[in-house]
Amino acid sequence: MTVGDIERLIHLLARLPGLGPRSARRAVLQMIKRPETLMLPLAAALRQAAENILTCATCGNLDTANPCAICRAPGRNAALICVVEEVADLWAIERSGAFKGLYHVLGGTLSALDGRGPEQLNIGSLIDRVERARGSEAPVVEVILALGTTVDGQTTAHYIAERLGDTGVAISRLAQGVPVGGELDYLDDGTLSAALKARRPA
Amino acid sequence: MTVGDIERLIHLLARLPGLGPRSARRAVLQMIKRPETLMLPLAAALRQAAENILTCATCGNLDTANPCAICRAPGRNAALICVVEEVADLWAIERSGAFKGLYHVLGGTLSALDGRGPEQLNIGSLIDRVERARGSEAPVVEVILALGTTVDGQTTAHYIAERLGDTGVAISRLAQGVPVGGELDYLDDGTLSAALKARRPA
Repeated sequence: MTVGDIERLIHLLARLPGLGPRSARRAVLQMIKRPETLMLPLAAALRQAAENILTCATCGNLDTANPCAICRAPGRNAALICVVEEVADLWAIERSGAFKGLYHVLGGTLSALDGRGPEQLNIGSLIDRVERARGSEAPVVEVILALGTTVDGQTTAHYIAERLGDTGVAISRLAQGVPVGGELDYLDDGTLSAALKARRPA
Repeated sequence: MTVGDIERLIHLLARLPGLGPRSARRAVLQMIKRPETLMLPLAAALRQAAENILTCATCGNLDTANPCAICRAPGRNAALICVVEEVADLWAIERSGAFKGLYHVLGGTLSALDGRGPEQLNIGSLIDRVERARGSEAPVVEVILALGTTVDGQTTAHYIAERLGDTGVAISRLAQGVPVGGELDYLDDGTLSAALKARRPA
């Protein structure tokens, strides 16, 4: 193929996670069939997002405003801070609709293998945030560590719990157990063990 | 989520084949980390493609020029026309590097189920093209029916072979080696090359 425009577009699309060169080609061919309804709106949405999206200086969420819509929302409970690894996790919890407090996005986990220490993550700003709120009229009462149940996620949770020890806030973690709608037969042994250990009266 | 820009972008990306809402979200989060290197170039490439890409009036290929680069290329053998279902198939054959003739893109196959008859496909233009070349100094010598080995693909091949019967051109098909039920776009280059080289009279 010598078609520069198309090749360049395929090359760029193929760099998105989840799309390889083959699916990028399919995507381009489908888009070309209806440039007005998909291709041009997508181009405009990408440009707009690139120009307008900011990182919230308070919690690390992505939004078109700083502080973000969640930090500014009047109805939310500022006494609860939910600590997550990535913005994707924040979005997942928001979709569940089960949490009405505020967030703090770490930007990853501690990792000995990848050489990521506490100073590469938004841990200092979390401690600051809790400390600053301590004397105010809206103190933080509980920090929920909603980190992944990987080794790195749990190491990070331990580390943060230790750093927060002096502040006097309650520290909690997500419950571990059988996923809703999950079949026991398909669960890994670790999850089954955790669910058994954490069993509750019916 | 109330972030309009981000949500709209995810919604549009999720409409691409191969990307669902979840992978669209991942793609957006990755892009936002580097707007200058991926997001803005992708926006520009999409707009450029939407504005510049044309369908070749001769063969049905997509290009930024009409006639397309393949139809205009001086080194190619105009005595050979390779008939394919979709532009994706043309690209697949071009990638194999095994064919140096010209193409004709049908835009699909005949299909009783989907109610697609000959008038919905570029079959008339193929017959015209062969007929017009007949008296000229560059007659078409052979038409290669490179259609999928699906029922619809083979029906279409039969139909075209019949319509071309009076023109006196040789008609060939890709050699067996194309897996039954397979689509050209998913074939590896080696199989495509072998099938082209071993083509047989229809």
